[in-house]
Amino acid sequence: MTRTSPAGTPLGDSFHVYDTTLRDGAQREGISYSVADKLLVARHLDSLGVGFIEGGWPGAMPKDTEFFARAAAGELELKHAALVAFGATRRPGAKAHEDPQVLALLHSGAPVVTLVAKSDRRHVERALRTDIAENCAMVRDTVRFLVGEGRRVFLDAEHFFDGYAYDPACALKVLESAVDGGADVVVLCDTNGGQLPTGLAETVTDVVARTGFRVGIHCQDDTSCAVANSVAAVQAGASHVQCTANGYGERAGNADLFAVVGNLVTKLGMPVLPADSAAELTRVSHALAEIANIAPDTHQAYVGASAFAHKAGLHASAIKVDPELYNHIDPVTVGNGMRVLVTEMAGRASLELKGREFGIDLAGQPQALSSAVRKVKELEAKGWSFEAADASLELLLRREMREDADLPAAEPPFTLESYRVLLDRRPDGAIVSEATVKVRVDGERVIATAEGNGPVHALDAALRKGLLPHLPWLDTVELADYKVRILTEHPGTDAVTRVLVESTDGDHEWTTVGVHGNIVEASWLALCDALVHKAMHVSQLTTS
Amino acid sequence: MTRTSPAGTPLGDSFHVYDTTLRDGAQREGISYSVADKLLVARHLDSLGVGFIEGGWPGAMPKDTEFFARAAAGELELKHAALVAFGATRRPGAKAHEDPQVLALLHSGAPVVTLVAKSDRRHVERALRTDIAENCAMVRDTVRFLVGEGRRVFLDAEHFFDGYAYDPACALKVLESAVDGGADVVVLCDTNGGQLPTGLAETVTDVVARTGFRVGIHCQDDTSCAVANSVAAVQAGASHVQCTANGYGERAGNADLFAVVGNLVTKLGMPVLPADSAAELTRVSHALAEIANIAPDTHQAYVGASAFAHKAGLHASAIKVDPELYNHIDPVTVGNGMRVLVTEMAGRASLELKGREFGIDLAGQPQALSSAVRKVKELEAKGWSFEAADASLELLLRREMREDADLPAAEPPFTLESYRVLLDRRPDGAIVSEATVKVRVDGERVIATAEGNGPVHALDAALRKGLLPHLPWLDTVELADYKVRILTEHPGTDAVTRVLVESTDGDHEWTTVGVHGNIVEASWLALCDALVHKAMHVSQLTTS
Repeated sequence: MTRTSPAGTPLGDSFHVYDTTLRDGAQREGISYSVADKLLVARHLDSLGVGFIEGGWPGAMPKDTEFFARAAAGELELKHAALVAFGATRRPGAKAHEDPQVLALLHSGAPVVTLVAKSDRRHVERALRTDIAENCAMVRDTVRFLVGEGRRVFLDAEHFFDGYAYDPACALKVLESAVDGGADVVVLCDTNGGQLPTGLAETVTDVVARTGFRVGIHCQDDTSCAVANSVAAVQAGASHVQCTANGYGERAGNADLFAVVGNLVTKLGMPVLPADSAAELTRVSHALAEIANIAPDTHQAYVGASAFAHKAGLHASAIKVDPELYNHIDPVTVGNGMRVLVTEMAGRASLELKGREFGIDLAGQPQALSSAVRKVKELEAKGWSFEAADASLELLLRREMREDADLPAAEPPFTLESYRVLLDRRPDGAIVSEATVKVRVDGERVIATAEGNGPVHALDAALRKGLLPHLPWLDTVELADYKVRILTEHPGTDAVTRVLVESTDGDHEWTTVGVHGNIVEASWLALCDALVHKAMHVSQLTTS
Repeated sequence: MTRTSPAGTPLGDSFHVYDTTLRDGAQREGISYSVADKLLVARHLDSLGVGFIEGGWPGAMPKDTEFFARAAAGELELKHAALVAFGATRRPGAKAHEDPQVLALLHSGAPVVTLVAKSDRRHVERALRTDIAENCAMVRDTVRFLVGEGRRVFLDAEHFFDGYAYDPACALKVLESAVDGGADVVVLCDTNGGQLPTGLAETVTDVVARTGFRVGIHCQDDTSCAVANSVAAVQAGASHVQCTANGYGERAGNADLFAVVGNLVTKLGMPVLPADSAAELTRVSHALAEIANIAPDTHQAYVGASAFAHKAGLHASAIKVDPELYNHIDPVTVGNGMRVLVTEMAGRASLELKGREFGIDLAGQPQALSSAVRKVKELEAKGWSFEAADASLELLLRREMREDADLPAAEPPFTLESYRVLLDRRPDGAIVSEATVKVRVDGERVIATAEGNGPVHALDAALRKGLLPHLPWLDTVELADYKVRILTEHPGTDAVTRVLVESTDGDHEWTTVGVHGNIVEASWLALCDALVHKAMHVSQLTTS
């Protein structure tokens, strides 16, 4: 029998972390999950230990129907979570057991069903065009039918807070109909997202006191309070909280799973995830951003790359002494790390700390430190940014160290003479990108030409082709990600392009940066840094 | 005499909207304001009607010193706001009137000074390395000196909430010293950002009850609750709220000015801005993102481009009837608009609504509507996205309409035969980008060659050079913004590039999209759509 309640969380069935990334989260502008994506997302969420995973709306969305079919066929084995199908109640005037949408929920094979129902009288009358009595009957009949078929049923009371403010008796009747039919959680949804914590908590307290029902909460972020509202609802008695990964969702989004769980675990001391799962929050957040194909929000609470990054000159020197005074929690708790940012506001203290991350002791070389600070400032003024490009920064610091110590410059693995890129769109529509590089490596002059999908790809291919016979380790190095940012100081002025290249050799990832008015040259600079960085670590290994 | 309190807000000095974008906001990773930027930001904030603009830390940051000097010299005329200099109290053991940092605050010419002071005993002892008595004397002396010199002084009590939890008496002593010295607002700062609304509101209530002081609030977003915390503090008695534009700030950022003000104005009915200013929130938010050179957060509450955008197939048909049932406020209140998104989840209803925005009646042409839906889905599957590219979508819809009505295809203003782009990095390091286009226009074959900063710029220049003699309206069209997104379905597969081009003719802006494996071809497609869109509107004007 498939699971209908969470497994392995210390709080068991008494508290539900309910994820709706695959249904409500998918409403976010820009997200389009394939079925394979959905299966992958569900596996990540399950590995984190959420109690319920809402997989979609079978019967309404073909992809979702397929997702449930493939999950039921064995493609999705869940360790912790129960799988949930989302759908609507029977249509007005129809019979639940004959309604094709209701049957699709049953046939999805999901052990848990969340039904959405209108709880604002205006929506019942104006959008659904029926009356309260029929609306309640639709809820009761559908819940009863599905419970009778062995399903656990939750009710999403849509527009609940607006509805309760407008006509509380009507809103409560919908909840009563659901519980009467056999639903065991009624979820109060702030569908338009207009609530603030104080008012929302009052309503939750009121509903719990008046009905005694088990209450859940579902918040949208239209007042930028979705996380606070969710936490306030829990404090007011809700024991089921619906979230989406990274707050993905329609309009301003939903309550962010990672921030809600982070707050419940670290601030309220509620063990809502299995032991050790909190330490996976950052990893899972980034993995789910990757699958959604959305750049992670670097400033996201708890899990963002900047969430524990300190820039301020004001604090940088004190942070060296007492990091715990400057972080609201130990970043390790949520699988994140503290970083020190290199920026024009920071200066010596930050750069020294940063050097320590690379295993470089700059404290002993004040000259090198000063000239590195100056160099970084100069480059940043031209649009370079080392905040996300540690590998380029490490190269810069090591170069300054050598100069200061009067050591010869490290031998670069290759030097460029020139390159040429040709792009041809022919009258038949075919497009050819071809690059030729002329480089010196091992004292030899090498000329190589290659084609690619675009100018940068062709250039990368030509360079590798020329270098590979001389630098066999190149074979393991791959371009993992490539990001382009056009920097326009002000409209009308010439833009510069900043390119970030993330490389991997299977064991490590590293990021390098290039900035230039010409996108191809900016890419070239970042590509070269990536290879030089790898070469440096290869030579350290062979000489040590 | 320069103003020391806000002018023109209905609430006058009794409530302070205090902006610290230029100081605390500038700590955000990636922000680097020039002095000209800072002046521009201040003008925008003043036009919105905030009460106080914290301009920076004169004496500590050279750019900030220059900013205050240029502001005092007449480059910044404020209608509503008072200008604030931020800085530290005198050093331990020093005299306030001799401390160079304190004197720099005085000499900045700012009529208001915000002093930051430690209010957590651990920070006093471990970071400042002094005792409570001296810390309090530093606060009292410095405030008294600046007040004696005619300045209005606020106190930022750093790490207040952590400090109050650890040693309340010590934290309160710091506030008392400031008020004793003549400060008239003590600002409770959640510097590490670890608070939740309930606990934070209790502390604010407590402090107000125990001291009777005028209390302000400053929140960081590390629990994703900065906006909720700020609003909760106001509800608990704070009458001065410190925010930053778009929540810019260190780590997870600060409380977002636009969400806080949006909530105070539309939810709590507090007229904290001059009449009609709320309608400027969206415009100012986007202008400040532009100056910070950070892509606006499309999902930001109130002001994001998606904040009132509806995607759900679930609701799209009902939204046509009753838009006010699906938005928490009328978007016009904050200068935003409702949009309907075109996505695979939406379908006919959304596309029909979207057509209406363009003045196209698709309801009367079901065939055209069906084939447009099919076309959009096909393209979206290949990585196209029309959500941010209305002009490309309008072209697509108009083409389908014509085909359905059996009208001849609209004559495009030009047709491409071929192009060629050549990029040469020469041994001396010079880089040349040159493009040649061959197009047909007015029945003539035109060949034009031009150089540019990069491949796309050269291509754009060559195209314009060839077309301008035939299409004189081209002269007014400029490329306003150019965005590149690399779409990797999954690591290892071939990436496609999506380019968005924003164009302007001085009166209107429009955005077009191009997608291709080759970045230059993707750019070409978006550039062509931009010109065709303009041509279409030119021909509508001349034929009507």
